[in-house]
Amino acid sequence: MKVLQVELDHARSYPIYIGSGLLAQAELLTRHIHSKQVLIVTNETIAPLYLAKLQAGLSAYQVATVILPDGEQFKTLQYLDNIFDQLLANKFSRNATLIALGGGVIGDMGGFAAACYQRGIAFIQIPTTLLAQVDSSVGGKTGVNHALGKNMIGAFYQPQCVIADADVLDTLDDRQLSAGLAEVIKYGLIRDLEFLHWLEANMPLLLGRDKTALAYAIERSCANKAAVVGEDEFESGVRATLNLGHTFGHAIETGCGYGHYLHGEAVAIGTCFAADLSRRLGWLNDADVERIVAIFKAANLPVTPPAEMTTAQYVDLMAVDKKNIDGKIRVILLEAVGKASLPVNVDLAQLQATLNSYAG
Amino acid sequence: MKVLQVELDHARSYPIYIGSGLLAQAELLTRHIHSKQVLIVTNETIAPLYLAKLQAGLSAYQVATVILPDGEQFKTLQYLDNIFDQLLANKFSRNATLIALGGGVIGDMGGFAAACYQRGIAFIQIPTTLLAQVDSSVGGKTGVNHALGKNMIGAFYQPQCVIADADVLDTLDDRQLSAGLAEVIKYGLIRDLEFLHWLEANMPLLLGRDKTALAYAIERSCANKAAVVGEDEFESGVRATLNLGHTFGHAIETGCGYGHYLHGEAVAIGTCFAADLSRRLGWLNDADVERIVAIFKAANLPVTPPAEMTTAQYVDLMAVDKKNIDGKIRVILLEAVGKASLPVNVDLAQLQATLNSYAG
Repeated sequence: MKVLQVELDHARSYPIYIGSGLLAQAELLTRHIHSKQVLIVTNETIAPLYLAKLQAGLSAYQVATVILPDGEQFKTLQYLDNIFDQLLANKFSRNATLIALGGGVIGDMGGFAAACYQRGIAFIQIPTTLLAQVDSSVGGKTGVNHALGKNMIGAFYQPQCVIADADVLDTLDDRQLSAGLAEVIKYGLIRDLEFLHWLEANMPLLLGRDKTALAYAIERSCANKAAVVGEDEFESGVRATLNLGHTFGHAIETGCGYGHYLHGEAVAIGTCFAADLSRRLGWLNDADVERIVAIFKAANLPVTPPAEMTTAQYVDLMAVDKKNIDGKIRVILLEAVGKASLPVNVDLAQLQATLNSYAG
Repeated sequence: MKVLQVELDHARSYPIYIGSGLLAQAELLTRHIHSKQVLIVTNETIAPLYLAKLQAGLSAYQVATVILPDGEQFKTLQYLDNIFDQLLANKFSRNATLIALGGGVIGDMGGFAAACYQRGIAFIQIPTTLLAQVDSSVGGKTGVNHALGKNMIGAFYQPQCVIADADVLDTLDDRQLSAGLAEVIKYGLIRDLEFLHWLEANMPLLLGRDKTALAYAIERSCANKAAVVGEDEFESGVRATLNLGHTFGHAIETGCGYGHYLHGEAVAIGTCFAADLSRRLGWLNDADVERIVAIFKAANLPVTPPAEMTTAQYVDLMAVDKKNIDGKIRVILLEAVGKASLPVNVDLAQLQATLNSYAG
């Protein structure tokens, strides 16, 4: 087992445990629980696979469970209320602990519910998808979607710990595995060229679910994320670089209806947009863009957007991105392969040129 | 105009402006607005009275408005979503400012919406009830109610400033004025005996809306609150003393249906419960309890609870209070008149004796 520490101010630092068989090691979990009351939040896909295993280690606690439907389309204020219902029906106190057992949707909702319940209770992330293990479970971004924009309602709220058990990836379907690889590739593109080389060389091993390769990819991704978050917890600067491809990606997720594309798929397409726009600014050359498109293709990810979305729709949806200032659209681009820009005010004509080259 | 500073860590300190005619001094407000985009959240009672006056000072901004129905029964996640709808429909960015113009419900909801929108935008409190001016607008407690418990979903989130214009109290009805006095009296009871003496002597002036007396009561209440919050922003200790009467009071508000009792009315009744329980512990004598009951009566506040609530109902509702630990009921009591206790684990038999003496 590897332990990575996310270093934050004001006693908010916490460990990420990465390894095999961690779900069976109840002590890893219980050392971070400081009350009798525990709520597990999970979904209909994960519950039959891992809920009993998790509960087995918690027999000494008063455990309640919320099982939500599976999918991005349920990441709403309305479904969030189901979590509050359970907390209150069980009369859980402010010293209770919430455990999020699932992918990014469960982690985001569980974390946001924990942030808001009685103005903040403890929570623990047990990510069960590659995407959640390498990205969404680390760094304290929690929240829900709104019909008009993704992740628009939420909180910065850090967990007590993250337990990334590589064994749970055995039950992940191929499409979800590839979606997770989109965020893994992102770290290579924005700040870790050496890792990008490694990914280019080892993609077949990762897709073949080689345990050693996956564990390495998770660990290196978490190390990159922890470094960025440790430097800029509340995204006043460098943390925004983690959003490469996300402005376009969120527009695709919202525009096509939540749940149609997986988040990682939309990020893959969005990063190809960002690469194209970076080329138009003279920051990348044709070979760079081809290289970026190639690695997403190698990970079995989509690289072209849905035909039905129009340029006007993109511009409209991108106008509510969290990086914007006074409504002006800002995106993360690549100054080079391996080096992200800070948020850039994009020239609307150039943005439209990129969108027109893709949009239907 | 008086300026009180709430002293907090990490650049979260802010001023409370107290005086007359402040709503017309736009500069007070605009010095705290750092974007073009401003959302005013108010309600159907306040909008016809003060919205135009506020908007007049904001002609240089892109101003949108949300007008919610008036009452505690609308302080829900569902109505909160109306605020997010407006922020997103207007494509407001993370540097936008939300202004809460109203009483405690509007302040709590506006503050919570600001805390959550894009994980946090700036907000300003313009309280229009005495209760909001002396209590709820100061200190950063924001949130909404749940059917099973009051203020159960929320955030600690501090405003940029609070503008308490005593002139707006001219339009407050007598019942609302008295409800505000309940929180004013509370400061005397928990930590400011000299102020309690002053209140006992000056209650007729306050009920007669004497401007000088009201301004003094607001200022001294805010000074007490700012001192407590400055010492313990996140309620790990002394801040809980501000909750005198609130555990019983919240049970009454929830049990009778939000909006039936005003918050201050329920707090007045709840403080009489707390006084009775303090006497059972030998902390107060009969004369102390009579003195407490007398000052609430002098402020035209109720001192006996609704006949329809049973002891079992109180115990059930009090079991979800935020001061509880592992589901054990804890309340704030009075060690003496002018000195609150920290949260006390109450003996259930003694609690029931108090409840039986009041409950139907």
